[in-house]
Parts: sequence; C-alpha cells; structure tokens
Amino acid sequence: MTVEFTVFKGSANTGIVKSTTRHAPPTGNQVQVRITHSGVCGTDEHYKHLDMVLGHEGVGIVEQIGDSVKDLQVGDVVGWGYVHKVCGRCEECSHGEDQYCSTKEEYGLANQHQGSFGSRAIWDADILFKIPAGLKPEHAAPLMCAGATIFGVLESFNVRPTDRVGVVGIGGVGHMAILFLAKMGASVVVFSSTESKRGEALRLGASEFHSTAGADKFDVAPVDHLIVATSFLPNWEPYMQVVKRRGTIYPLTLSFDNLLIPQYPLLARGLNVQGSIVASRSVLKHMLDFSARNQIKPVIECFPLTKSGIEESMARLGEGKIRYRAVLVAEC
Amino acid sequence: MTVEFTVFKGSANTGIVKSTTRHAPPTGNQVQVRITHSGVCGTDEHYKHLDMVLGHEGVGIVEQIGDSVKDLQVGDVVGWGYVHKVCGRCEECSHGEDQYCSTKEEYGLANQHQGSFGSRAIWDADILFKIPAGLKPEHAAPLMCAGATIFGVLESFNVRPTDRVGVVGIGGVGHMAILFLAKMGASVVVFSSTESKRGEALRLGASEFHSTAGADKFDVAPVDHLIVATSFLPNWEPYMQVVKRRGTIYPLTLSFDNLLIPQYPLLARGLNVQGSIVASRSVLKHMLDFSARNQIKPVIECFPLTKSGIEESMARLGEGKIRYRAVLVAEC
Repeated sequence: MTVEFTVFKGSANTGIVKSTTRHAPPTGNQVQVRITHSGVCGTDEHYKHLDMVLGHEGVGIVEQIGDSVKDLQVGDVVGWGYVHKVCGRCEECSHGEDQYCSTKEEYGLANQHQGSFGSRAIWDADILFKIPAGLKPEHAAPLMCAGATIFGVLESFNVRPTDRVGVVGIGGVGHMAILFLAKMGASVVVFSSTESKRGEALRLGASEFHSTAGADKFDVAPVDHLIVATSFLPNWEPYMQVVKRRGTIYPLTLSFDNLLIPQYPLLARGLNVQGSIVASRSVLKHMLDFSARNQIKPVIECFPLTKSGIEESMARLGEGKIRYRAVLVAEC
Repeated sequence: MTVEFTVFKGSANTGIVKSTTRHAPPTGNQVQVRITHSGVCGTDEHYKHLDMVLGHEGVGIVEQIGDSVKDLQVGDVVGWGYVHKVCGRCEECSHGEDQYCSTKEEYGLANQHQGSFGSRAIWDADILFKIPAGLKPEHAAPLMCAGATIFGVLESFNVRPTDRVGVVGIGGVGHMAILFLAKMGASVVVFSSTESKRGEALRLGASEFHSTAGADKFDVAPVDHLIVATSFLPNWEPYMQVVKRRGTIYPLTLSFDNLLIPQYPLLARGLNVQGSIVASRSVLKHMLDFSARNQIKPVIECFPLTKSGIEESMARLGEGKIRYRAVLVAEC
C-alpha cells in the first residue's frame, strides 16, 4: 500500500515546486515520519536550484516503522538533520567522528532526497534522534543543523566553561553559540555588523558586543576560540590579533570560495584554523540532552510549512531579516 | 675590558657588511660564546636588507660567563637559535609554549642583534642549549631553527610513530622532517617538485616520493598530517584530498602573503590548518637529546664563516641549490 507525501523541491529557476512523492510503506530499518516542523537553513539556499526535496532540520512524529526498527515506536517525536547513515567501521567512525565517515560521499546532496520540507518522509532509524521531553519541537528543529554546527565545535574541540569565546556573525547559527556558551558559563564575545543586535545579543547571554561595521581593528582582550558564523567569509586581517596565541578559529561559513588567512600571524602566533561540519551522532545526542536539561530556546520566527511559507521564509532569510531562525510549522 | 667581535650584517642594498662590535665582558646571566658554526636559513634572506647581524642557528664554545650563570661553564658547546628570553609566567609560558610568550615582541627582529654570523656573541644563558656529546656542532647548528621548526610540530601536535605523514618541499626544513619521522618509525610521504631529489629522499628514510611538478591531483593514500615546508606557499587545491578527514596541515613557509585554503573541503572534511613556529625551550632540549641518541645527521654543505662564504651560501640558497642546509664554519 503506497503512501503519498507532499514535498517541496528546488528547481532550475530556483522557484519552490510543490510535488507529490509515492513510497512503499517502511520496511526493515525504515521509519515513516509525519513532519511537524522544519528549520530553514542558509544551506537550503545553496540547493534551491536543484530538483530535490529541501530542508534538513526536521522534527516530526513516527507514524509507521519497519520490522527491524528497535529503538523507536509509533508516536515518538524524532529529529532528523544533516546526518548520513554511517558505516561504524572506518577510521573516522571508530574515532567517534562519524560525521566524516569515509564510506559516504562528500557532504552535499546524498541526504537530500528525503528532505524535511514536506508532509512526510521515510528515514533510516539510525539517523533519527528522539527529541527529549521538555524540548519543544519548534525549538528542536533548528538544533538539528544550526545547533549541531555549534555544539559539534564545542564538544569536538574541547571548548571549556573557563574559555573566552568569540562569536562572529549573529544569525541562525551564531545566536545558538551565544545560547550554548552562556549556559555553560563561558565568556561570550560577540562581533556583529548589525549594531541593532547588540541588546538582544546581551540578553541572550553575550558578555561583550563589538560592532564590526567599518572596523579594521578591535580593541578587545583576545579570545581562546573564535567561532565564525557569518553568511559570507569575512576579512580575516582584523581577527588575527583577536585570537590568543595558540588559539583556534572555526570558519563555519558554508562557501565555495577560498579562505584568505594571513600566513605570517598564523605562524608567528601559532594560530589554528579548524574546519568543522555539523556533529557526530553521539554529540548530537548530547546536544539534545543538554538543550532539554538547560532549556535552550533558539529564537525563532514561524512560517507555515507550505509553498508560500517556504518562499517567504527563504526570501526573508536571503535579505538577512530573520531573527534568528525560521521554522516551518505544519498546519500553522 | 671591552671584547671586540667580528659580525656580518645585512644592509639597505642587501649586500653583506663585515663590521666590528665592541661589548663589555659578560655580567649577570650573560655568556660570551665563540661561534664555530652557523646554519644559513631562508629567513636570513628576509632580513638581509636590514642593518642587523644575521644568523640564528649558532653553535659555539662558551668563553666567559657572568656571575649568575649556573648551568654553563667555560668550554661547554652550546647552541642558540630562534629563541627569545621568556617570562615564564604568562598563559603561553605556563602551558609550556614559551615560543609564544606574550611578553615578548612579535617574532622578528628582536633577537637578531646578536646573530650567529660573527666571530663571537653575548647571549643570555637562558636561551642557550648545551649540545649533547655525540652531536657534532655542524649537525647541531641547523637543528637550532630548521630542526626545531619540524620537531616543534611533531612534539606539540602529537605526531605519532603510527601516523602517515606528508612532507611537502625538501629543503633545509623539509629534509629534517624526513630524518626525524623515519627515525621515529612513521610512514613518510614526500611531495617535491624536484624529481632529482627522489633517490635521496628515499635514502633519508621517505616511504614514498610523489613528484608535484605539473600535478593537479595526487594518487596517494591520504595522510594524517601534512607538513608543508616549501619556499613559497603552494597551490592548496591538490592537497585537500591528500589529507585524511580530520587531518592537519602545517603550513610552515615563512611568508607575508595570504594562505588561500579552499573553504568547502576544509569544512566538509573537518580539516585543520595549524600555524607553528620553531619550538618551546623544552621541546628544543628534547630534540637535541633525540638527535644525539638517534644520530640524526642533517645533510649539510659547509662554507667558511666569512663575508664571501656567507655571500656564496646565500646566493646558492636563493637559487635552490643547497643540499640541504648550508652551514658556515669558522676557520673552515
């Protein structure tokens, strides 16, 4: 008995296309999820010219499961993000870094054929995460990619509660960094080109706010870590003195350009530039537990999970107007 | 009673100038060294337009010591490199990373007023290292900067005997990487634009040799660490797939240009770009002990420690003809 889903895809002219997908009922380790919420990520922008289902910050309710599914039941609230099925055996997996599993293709399109911009999806149970009680689905959705992008850095690279951490760019990803870091007791030093975000950044937990508009230098005590979550790669020159000697820069901006890092201060100050993408499955679970326990609440704007809701939210995201993450809600 | 030294300086027109320096005899923690050997480093090239004594890979014999010198005696063989007096109290020092001591000026000129291109120098005892018996002074000299540059990476970033390590560029610095890594049992994967260095690289201990001339891609099993010791920053594109996911690139080339690192693979593969300069004093001591115990012998070409010897060695270095480190020898 075939199930019929509504899905929303990109297209060659970048318009959102509403379409219908038919799928056999879940078998084996498959899980059918009725999607209730989906975050809207800047990465969706990169893929909207393609004929594929968009969205990778999904939350929904398990409707049906295959025979071999063990840890999920009908009625569970689950999340799905930028997560692939992994082998569990390669070097990366055995180091607990399964987001880099060698057996999968490069990050990109492979996981996008069952995106979360739709009414339902069939996902493998191994890439679903139970949303803990106490975490609302509209808050859980943007954690699945934006949250994981930050939490992956904090956990994998041992960012400590005693550290001073810079956050450059306060959007969907950057504002999560403030939330997590403030909650763990770290000192959070925000850099933003939008002076009007100062008040909210401080309310969210920032210790300091530095305006970057027109600045070619910052008068700031240096930070141990600098998390860069801008929409476009920044000019790195002013930041080289912002990071302590032997400190680390995490350039999280998704870009197909080159980083242009001044080589001399990189050497002379022993700086580190660390690439990172989302998080391992283990870190993702820790993030959900941490968020539920500590009432992490991403700042969201809701839109209906419809063609026009997607179009409007993506348009506003493109204009830099979302404060700070758009979440699509089914039957909003 | 003033001591008179011969020293060799740079000059505005980049010619080497022989000059005489007068200095009071050593007091306090000062040590007067009769210089017997000095390596010639690419960095000297960067400073030869300045009126300062060149050379920072010195080895010599202690001739006189100040009242407070405790651990050195007249007759000791000592080395001096790219090492500053450090505070011992700042955050970097207390992490054992005194090469980044915050109280000193940025690396550059501060330590160059008593360079090793000369007959004698007065140095602070704290920045001198006893050369262990069994290490010849002509082999010890190039260890003081070129060797420390590599050993600093191996020790500070936990390069393991079980790792597969790429070395790009086989010159004064790169060939030391082969020597150290082969001795510690690691797999050493050499990349060089000079096909004629293949035989020697393998004899020095390389496991593989890959010619980079005209290559835009390498058919090579990926490495855990990629140490880049080229004279000029390379095109990074072909190397992004050479490094394992979550692996580290060490761009050691001294340059005032920008690194141009492709952002997407940096993110998607979780790569790390780690700046590093020379080594802490503790690592430098370990390097000298390791080198003496394991008979590390840099491949050197000797020149007289005279104006014409300096000129000839620097000219040949500039032409890329030195195999692999020039060492100036007093009364050669």
